Amino acid sequence: MTKRIDLNCDMGESFGMYTIGADERLLPYITSANIACGAHAGDPAVMERTVQLAKQHGVAVGAHPGFPDIAGFGRRMIDYLPDEVYQMVVQQIGSLQAFCTVHNVKMQHVKPHGALYNAAAKSRSTADAIARAVRDVNGELLLFGLAGSELLTAGREAGLHVASEVFADRTYQADGSLTPRYEADALVTDVDEAVLQVEGMLQTGTVRAVGGEQVVIESDTICVHGDGSHAVTFAEKLRTALERDGVHVKAIGCND
Amino acid sequence: MTKRIDLNCDMGESFGMYTIGADERLLPYITSANIACGAHAGDPAVMERTVQLAKQHGVAVGAHPGFPDIAGFGRRMIDYLPDEVYQMVVQQIGSLQAFCTVHNVKMQHVKPHGALYNAAAKSRSTADAIARAVRDVNGELLLFGLAGSELLTAGREAGLHVASEVFADRTYQADGSLTPRYEADALVTDVDEAVLQVEGMLQTGTVRAVGGEQVVIESDTICVHGDGSHAVTFAEKLRTALERDGVHVKAIGCND
Amino acid sequence: MTKRIDLNCDMGESFGMYTIGADERLLPYITSANIACGAHAGDPAVMERTVQLAKQHGVAVGAHPGFPDIAGFGRRMIDYLPDEVYQMVVQQIGSLQAFCTVHNVKMQHVKPHGALYNAAAKSRSTADAIARAVRDVNGELLLFGLAGSELLTAGREAGLHVASEVFADRTYQADGSLTPRYEADALVTDVDEAVLQVEGMLQTGTVRAVGGEQVVIESDTICVHGDGSHAVTFAEKLRTALERDGVHVKAIGCND
Amino acid sequence: MTKRIDLNCDMGESFGMYTIGADERLLPYITSANIACGAHAGDPAVMERTVQLAKQHGVAVGAHPGFPDIAGFGRRMIDYLPDEVYQMVVQQIGSLQAFCTVHNVKMQHVKPHGALYNAAAKSRSTADAIARAVRDVNGELLLFGLAGSELLTAGREAGLHVASEVFADRTYQADGSLTPRYEADALVTDVDEAVLQVEGMLQTGTVRAVGGEQVVIESDTICVHGDGSHAVTFAEKLRTALERDGVHVKAIGCND
Repeated sequence: MTKRIDLNCDMGESFGMYTIGADERLLPYITSANIACGAHAGDPAVMERTVQLAKQHGVAVGAHPGFPDIAGFGRRMIDYLPDEVYQMVVQQIGSLQAFCTVHNVKMQHVKPHGALYNAAAKSRSTADAIARAVRDVNGELLLFGLAGSELLTAGREAGLHVASEVFADRTYQADGSLTPRYEADALVTDVDEAVLQVEGMLQTGTVRAVGGEQVVIESDTICVHGDGSHAVTFAEKLRTALERDGVHVKAIGCND
Repeated sequence: MTKRIDLNCDMGESFGMYTIGADERLLPYITSANIACGAHAGDPAVMERTVQLAKQHGVAVGAHPGFPDIAGFGRRMIDYLPDEVYQMVVQQIGSLQAFCTVHNVKMQHVKPHGALYNAAAKSRSTADAIARAVRDVNGELLLFGLAGSELLTAGREAGLHVASEVFADRTYQADGSLTPRYEADALVTDVDEAVLQVEGMLQTGTVRAVGGEQVVIESDTICVHGDGSHAVTFAEKLRTALERDGVHVKAIGCND
Repeated sequence: MTKRIDLNCDMGESFGMYTIGADERLLPYITSANIACGAHAGDPAVMERTVQLAKQHGVAVGAHPGFPDIAGFGRRMIDYLPDEVYQMVVQQIGSLQAFCTVHNVKMQHVKPHGALYNAAAKSRSTADAIARAVRDVNGELLLFGLAGSELLTAGREAGLHVASEVFADRTYQADGSLTPRYEADALVTDVDEAVLQVEGMLQTGTVRAVGGEQVVIESDTICVHGDGSHAVTFAEKLRTALERDGVHVKAIGCND
Repeated sequence: MTKRIDLNCDMGESFGMYTIGADERLLPYITSANIACGAHAGDPAVMERTVQLAKQHGVAVGAHPGFPDIAGFGRRMIDYLPDEVYQMVVQQIGSLQAFCTVHNVKMQHVKPHGALYNAAAKSRSTADAIARAVRDVNGELLLFGLAGSELLTAGREAGLHVASEVFADRTYQADGSLTPRYEADALVTDVDEAVLQVEGMLQTGTVRAVGGEQVVIESDTICVHGDGSHAVTFAEKLRTALERDGVHVKAIGCND
């Protein structure tokens, strides 16, 4: 097993006096940080601090645009027209890019957040708007999207390099989609089982769906959750297991 | 009289369904547009549209950062620490820069808005924070500030090129500061008188203060107000008079 | 024809420096004002001024809650849970109630705005959340909703008095719903035709749908649009025609 | 020692996904809750939950209005005109009142937050605006303000009942003002010493200033801080000591 993999995590989601996530404790275990751009979370101070932290840990930086709804943390769908999605994503990438420029960090990727991520998985017009925004601001940025999503298709058609994201701690349906969270068997709660799921993906290029079917899945980057009491332990165990297996854990844009 | 001058105007201050200003009607008469960055006014759609409009009219584009207070239009002082000012300005320049990138427009300058502009005229720590932000994001950007202000000093010390801004329709005190708006003689309401004031500045490098004193003043760019019922008429008359006088009216960053 | 009718109009939708609508010019022609509560539009200063204006004109005051999205003017659907809708409506009624208390005005009604109004027409859970919020804050408030909507049903089941709203300048489908705005024949653009449509509703209790069918419709209050260049003219013509017909034009909660 | 005292604490300052404070653990030890009104902190869901929690614990409810600046937690001074302060306070009291109405809770008091509290201590025009707002919305509300502040004077002149607030864990200057936080000796960090300070205030009606002077101080309510790792321990120790001393610890508006 000589496969390589990226471990990405949402970061910089604190806001003003409010703290969320365990960014500093997670950074040692991940390779790509999706940094909130002040719309669904984050603010200029948090953005700057998080870019600096990621740089210190040698973790690649990406923009993590979301709907401008801090009260809802970007998890509520807002009915945006494609042009509004495009402009929102352009603006948010620009916000984070300025802090990357200031700290001499090369932005690696863009990964939409929450309701925008989900919409971009299924709606081609939303996916296209995001892909166009990324391409127009900086065509060298990688676009992260759910494995099998419209977003990956839109990104490729826009001429972008894309990264197919998989989940260690979510179960899959026969069509390759994630089991909805309201289903009883949506989550892989046992860490060892989650590690096994990822190892299987990397070795076979498939994942076993809840119904038992083997589903083809492309794994470029694994989503590591930053919230929850076990987030740090989970990240540490996952990384340790992958390295023990001989997997090269490195940022997807890293050319080493 | 072979002097050159820049005419700048605040633009892109509409917001969502709300319209303010007469951008399209003013653009033919100005040479530099200060475009709101979504904090005191503007939103991603307005930012994009305004960058496009300025480009179509051959008007230079600048970022117009302000306190994030749309309800107060950035005119209420908010007690920010210098680091908060720095981060706010970095973020706002970045937001507008992304739309410039998308539309292949070179950003020319930065001019702070409203309460931030006023604070930067008198507070050296605020001025320094703004100057550092501009330099760190893009050291080639020009910094616009009130003639004689701390902002110009801070900008020069940060190694930036600065532009000294004068007002056609405001009166001056003996120390070179603007007469506060609450004074009866704060405004030059007659257009012809305003034109005369500008012509005097360009010919003599001085302005006559309300007390009669001649005050030395550096005039690189004139602030043209975008609101008020006479804004367009005023801009047209001012530009016509200046060109009639043989003044080269062009963007300050223009090398033609 | 001795029927009575209420004419309602959205008001208080200005925001900070931004002006929208022609409140003062419309107030002479309407009987109920739906006042924005600072979420989709309005701010504390606008709320207070609008309550005062309505009082001066003897126009009944209602709360006009909407999604908290000033950038989108409350017209973009946001995916709120029913509990979130409930709390949002409670909070917004309370905001306006405080200004009514200060100015000794009895609040008459609640009418949801934009995307919330549309959602409440079709979604029973949204409608129930709104009806419960109104009842819990003040069970004497009237609830305004689209004729035939889930909101009216929910309001009645919550024990509220409801008012069935009809449109003079929109066409109807055979099922009693409004023709969607994207259809070519959605609007009644001719004022005289719009007046005729309303007169027909009042005389026959029916409206002719676009396909020619006569549809039963309950008309307690007519929505008068406050935006658009012809808003004032339209309101004036409508009111004049109705009074000429002998219709008692008065606020629905008025017991005179 | 038969004196009575109120223990008040800021509550309901969480926001969306963001949690701040230890409301549920502090409620057993306090008698009055100052509940954020959605401007400097809080949102409709948090407001409702906090009103319910206070009711369950038999703790009196007050409105805690602040500048609308969640990013700055209401701690940054914003240059509001007195009319803007008035309208802001009216609106925020109304927001919380609606949830009190829904849950059949009688609102007891109003205490301004953060920068608004500090401004109201020194600026008479700000203090007057707040006092007028409280009186106009509900003249039976108590107004909490810093001992010796302009706010208490303004409240009394507006005909309100006021409560003089003292701090257990802050030191005092010879003029009765709080030692600014940036001074080395601003805080009383030792809990036992803080308890002693309060006991002294209640027994003697004075407090010993940092310079050794005994300063007259009126103590109606003690501010218990809700943040910090020792907040709960501190509140518990303070309440236990006061009850051991025979002080009647009850809400100031409580008539038992």
